[in-house]
Amino acid sequence: MKISPLFTDLYQLTMMNAYFKAEKRGTASFELFVRKLPENRNYLVFAGLNDVVGLLQNYRFKSEDIDYLYSLKLFSDDFLDFLKEFRFTGNLYAMREGEIFFQNEPVLRVEAPIYEAQLFETAIMNQIHISSLIATKAARVFSVAKGKKLADFSLRRTHGFDAGMKVARSSYLAGFDGTSNVLAGKVYGIPVVGTVAHSFIMAFESEEEAFRAYLETFPSNGVLLVDTYDTVEGVKRAVRVAKEMGVTLKGIRLDSGDVVELSKVARRLLDEAGFTETKIIVSGGLDEYRIREILEKGAPVDAFGVGTKVGTSADSPYIDFVYKLVEFNRRPVMKTSSGKKMYPGRKQVFRGKNGDTVGVFGEELPGEPLLEKIMENGQPVKKLPTLKESREFFLERFSKLPEEIKRVDRRVEYPVRISEKLKELYRRTLSEIERES
Amino acid sequence: MKISPLFTDLYQLTMMNAYFKAEKRGTASFELFVRKLPENRNYLVFAGLNDVVGLLQNYRFKSEDIDYLYSLKLFSDDFLDFLKEFRFTGNLYAMREGEIFFQNEPVLRVEAPIYEAQLFETAIMNQIHISSLIATKAARVFSVAKGKKLADFSLRRTHGFDAGMKVARSSYLAGFDGTSNVLAGKVYGIPVVGTVAHSFIMAFESEEEAFRAYLETFPSNGVLLVDTYDTVEGVKRAVRVAKEMGVTLKGIRLDSGDVVELSKVARRLLDEAGFTETKIIVSGGLDEYRIREILEKGAPVDAFGVGTKVGTSADSPYIDFVYKLVEFNRRPVMKTSSGKKMYPGRKQVFRGKNGDTVGVFGEELPGEPLLEKIMENGQPVKKLPTLKESREFFLERFSKLPEEIKRVDRRVEYPVRISEKLKELYRRTLSEIERES
Repeated sequence: MKISPLFTDLYQLTMMNAYFKAEKRGTASFELFVRKLPENRNYLVFAGLNDVVGLLQNYRFKSEDIDYLYSLKLFSDDFLDFLKEFRFTGNLYAMREGEIFFQNEPVLRVEAPIYEAQLFETAIMNQIHISSLIATKAARVFSVAKGKKLADFSLRRTHGFDAGMKVARSSYLAGFDGTSNVLAGKVYGIPVVGTVAHSFIMAFESEEEAFRAYLETFPSNGVLLVDTYDTVEGVKRAVRVAKEMGVTLKGIRLDSGDVVELSKVARRLLDEAGFTETKIIVSGGLDEYRIREILEKGAPVDAFGVGTKVGTSADSPYIDFVYKLVEFNRRPVMKTSSGKKMYPGRKQVFRGKNGDTVGVFGEELPGEPLLEKIMENGQPVKKLPTLKESREFFLERFSKLPEEIKRVDRRVEYPVRISEKLKELYRRTLSEIERES
Repeated sequence: MKISPLFTDLYQLTMMNAYFKAEKRGTASFELFVRKLPENRNYLVFAGLNDVVGLLQNYRFKSEDIDYLYSLKLFSDDFLDFLKEFRFTGNLYAMREGEIFFQNEPVLRVEAPIYEAQLFETAIMNQIHISSLIATKAARVFSVAKGKKLADFSLRRTHGFDAGMKVARSSYLAGFDGTSNVLAGKVYGIPVVGTVAHSFIMAFESEEEAFRAYLETFPSNGVLLVDTYDTVEGVKRAVRVAKEMGVTLKGIRLDSGDVVELSKVARRLLDEAGFTETKIIVSGGLDEYRIREILEKGAPVDAFGVGTKVGTSADSPYIDFVYKLVEFNRRPVMKTSSGKKMYPGRKQVFRGKNGDTVGVFGEELPGEPLLEKIMENGQPVKKLPTLKESREFFLERFSKLPEEIKRVDRRVEYPVRISEKLKELYRRTLSEIERES
């Protein structure tokens, strides 16, 4: 999807016009980070970088865009002429997609003439936000699923089209196994999965007739929904119909009622009938809290179809990402009002065995540096991993995260230290601001 | 934006294939409704109809879509051939955009051959959901704003691109005055608004220099952000710079700190300097609860810039819309398991002076019928209102809603009655289901 350059806040363009008029073109660095994690999140998962690289590379104002801006009677003609030729010419640093990150850690930095770096704020934040929000939520679900299969079933209630695509992609990135979103299957190569709906069962004279019609069409891979009328009867009927037809029953789905008890009964009925390979799939109002509960109660579930609460990250539907000016004309800067502390200057994040350290960019510290150069002078200098590679990377990183941090029921803070050099830079910058004002 | 027909759940297509094989082509009616309002919502606002009409009209499988479906090895060849020529051929009924609605009231009905009506479930729900979710949230903000101007500033943290556009549109529909989203301004004709960011102030040697640069570029419509360093000093400085330059100060923006106290101080400073026309704009973490509080404390605010919490409907980030089969082959149907009551058959909603009545479609009842025919045999039969007209319609409808229902701090239920005829149909359908099973 190509994103129009007008997909931005008006003030990005008015500020840009003011920079242009003031001939303010020095290089600025903006970093994207989170000051404080949401209350019920112990870690965040970085995602959406591919979209950012795509939008920086393809950022072009069309003549109809310029015409619209002209119609607003806000901008100077020479500025609008300048926009016609506008291209991103800066550098982009970022973490890898699938990386785990914490408070005060920049996940991305744009270095460019200030009017450029500023202009991209809105679109960069918008795109990283939704993908990281969902990758994080999905990772929590993955962390409690004990290896059971997970499928994204959220499409009908994601926040629109783009979210629907990004929820499918980000949940797969963070350990899910598939999605019901067919377009995401086509575009991203994610395995697509699905069963059957209540309306299908209801459209036939009887449940039995509906089961027959479905299994005739899908004799080797039919998953039947058994809870439209009476669930236990539904399971028995599914078994009987499959036996009579001599077909495989790939799975049954439970979407309502006491799924813990029902799954136990269903498993017993299936096993007694020799359908030991038939999977039990549970859906309906699931999230990490509910899945954890279902599994702790010993429900013999093979797969979960996870919907709305994950696709909207319902218990924490936004992350307070900020995109802040940290350096201008080689001078570290920071905002001091509002009581929200931030650190000045360009930074690097080092991952050690006992936590992370945020240091000054260029500083050598123990641990693995997490920010790498993705674009230079407006051009990509690094081939981005495929989605499957990023998924592998996430799984590897996630496996190293302490179990305590993975808890979904308790706030545990991962240690993020500030290097001595960065602390010193903070003090120096603060005293300079105080001297000047 | 054209939405691909693959933007659907896989099971819609597998069920369709099974209907196709079973030669099940009878006419079905599906209704979209909400069984129970979210806990902190007394009413909902219907929006997104234009997107649904667009997607039904333009639903075409491309050959690359068919190729992808073929690659899944799930579907029969004759079914895929059938999809190539697939068009929506049914009828669409819906409420008007901007209508207020409540539990158990269908907002939309699709009448079509069952495989068609089923196929569209995912996309219709996805599109109506996000627009109605945000129109509802924005209406709540509008209800407490006491006529102060409201602008959507949420773009950076909406759930992706499509949500960004729909948040701008739906909030305008529900009483907002403008958006910062420039593309929404171009596409929907919504007034675009904006001020200046902290980074702009920080990019200059001093706040004063930044103010000068901005006002030089926008001498007649500059809004200055005054809280980057010290807010009270910032206000004084803004006044002094504007006076020295002999320009108008259209407004100042407060984005942090105790905005109630700061706005009072700022208003006094502005008035003392003769800047009585300068507006005070407040932003930062706002929603209906916070705005209500700010205004109750007597803050002299002229406009609010409303962001993330409204753009993600953070206190209630989804609505449990369902799209249920209510009639098949002229026979009313309903799902009975799971304890979630629903009413069978095609319905009409009547708005009376003392509440609504949901009746059987075709039944004559007092009050205004809310569902109207939008498409017939796949073609639009009604010109949709413009966004401005829908906004007027919302404002008129909202003005008639009892004040008690508009409360944002308390659950109050609007009376929705079920007609005698519909109750009788429910009992009859239930006893038929019980007899058959």
